[in-house]
Amino acid sequence: MLNLAADTDPRWVEQAVADLGELLLDHAHCERKAAGLAVRLMFRYPDLGYLHEPLSRLAREELAHYEEVLRVIEARGEVIRRQKPSAYAGRLMKEIRSHEPERLIDTLLVAAIIEARSCERFKLLAAAVEDANLAKLYSGLLASEARHHNVYFDLAARAAGGGDIARGRLLELSALEAQILSAPAAGVRMHS
Amino acid sequence: MLNLAADTDPRWVEQAVADLGELLLDHAHCERKAAGLAVRLMFRYPDLGYLHEPLSRLAREELAHYEEVLRVIEARGEVIRRQKPSAYAGRLMKEIRSHEPERLIDTLLVAAIIEARSCERFKLLAAAVEDANLAKLYSGLLASEARHHNVYFDLAARAAGGGDIARGRLLELSALEAQILSAPAAGVRMHS
Repeated sequence: MLNLAADTDPRWVEQAVADLGELLLDHAHCERKAAGLAVRLMFRYPDLGYLHEPLSRLAREELAHYEEVLRVIEARGEVIRRQKPSAYAGRLMKEIRSHEPERLIDTLLVAAIIEARSCERFKLLAAAVEDANLAKLYSGLLASEARHHNVYFDLAARAAGGGDIARGRLLELSALEAQILSAPAAGVRMHS
Repeated sequence: MLNLAADTDPRWVEQAVADLGELLLDHAHCERKAAGLAVRLMFRYPDLGYLHEPLSRLAREELAHYEEVLRVIEARGEVIRRQKPSAYAGRLMKEIRSHEPERLIDTLLVAAIIEARSCERFKLLAAAVEDANLAKLYSGLLASEARHHNVYFDLAARAAGGGDIARGRLLELSALEAQILSAPAAGVRMHS
């Protein structure tokens, strides 16, 4: 359903649960970046009316999640602060073709893949964390991420003029995503 | 309450009501830009925790308004499309000082002023439009804009380390805003 080319290595879950403070901080930044991408796309394509309502709704949901994660961070006695992100999203974005409409199709598909990976990992985290509130947060989020994956895929299919073209490219990008994730990372991140 | 240095010229309302299609399109773009500014500020100041929750909530509200205006535009048989904006926001932004924390303080105050002017104009529009649904939309929005004005002013006061400093600068910028608005404009816009 999520079109991912490889499952997350079980060691990631162990490392993530062992460093929840760093993970939550990265998670907050990811939610804000997800909202930022949806908003940026609306600015980049003012004439593509079909993008706007779904992206605006999606951005609102990501911002609501951002606020939820901020509250968890504060409840743990910490504050939002700058943090070195993983190389994951940047590497994926490099695969986006530079001409239109391929640029739009690829951007939407990369966003769909990031949502899918987040969804898969929230499911793993929900089962692994001891804190019941945190488990509830992750369970709530994974359903949204699955929905966002579909929103982005459907928009990509529309931009590509057909689901088959979009699906073919999604599989190519998903294979690359699994490769990117298999590279060693410096610290624990949502997508390390 | 809104700290505006001059009332809107009554001729603006006449022109706006006479060209509602153009006005609604500009209004939609303004809501999206308001959301975009709030999101951009969160990215620019990742370490200023006090900004994040209020700006994220505000961005969500602006996006919800954007969707509302999109629905009105669609109900009138039109679609969102590129449109030349008024020079207003760009001219106001030029007044923002380039060093910190003045850059942040001024950006927040400029945002506060734009919200205040929108609030004042929504009140005028609510009284002037014949369409009852549109009057209801404008009445609903003016309350949010007044609240957003206060959110931005309070954040500016915090960034400035005191309400008096922020208020002094707000009055300076408001005087400039009234001057900018008095310049002749090409077409009907929310801030022409």
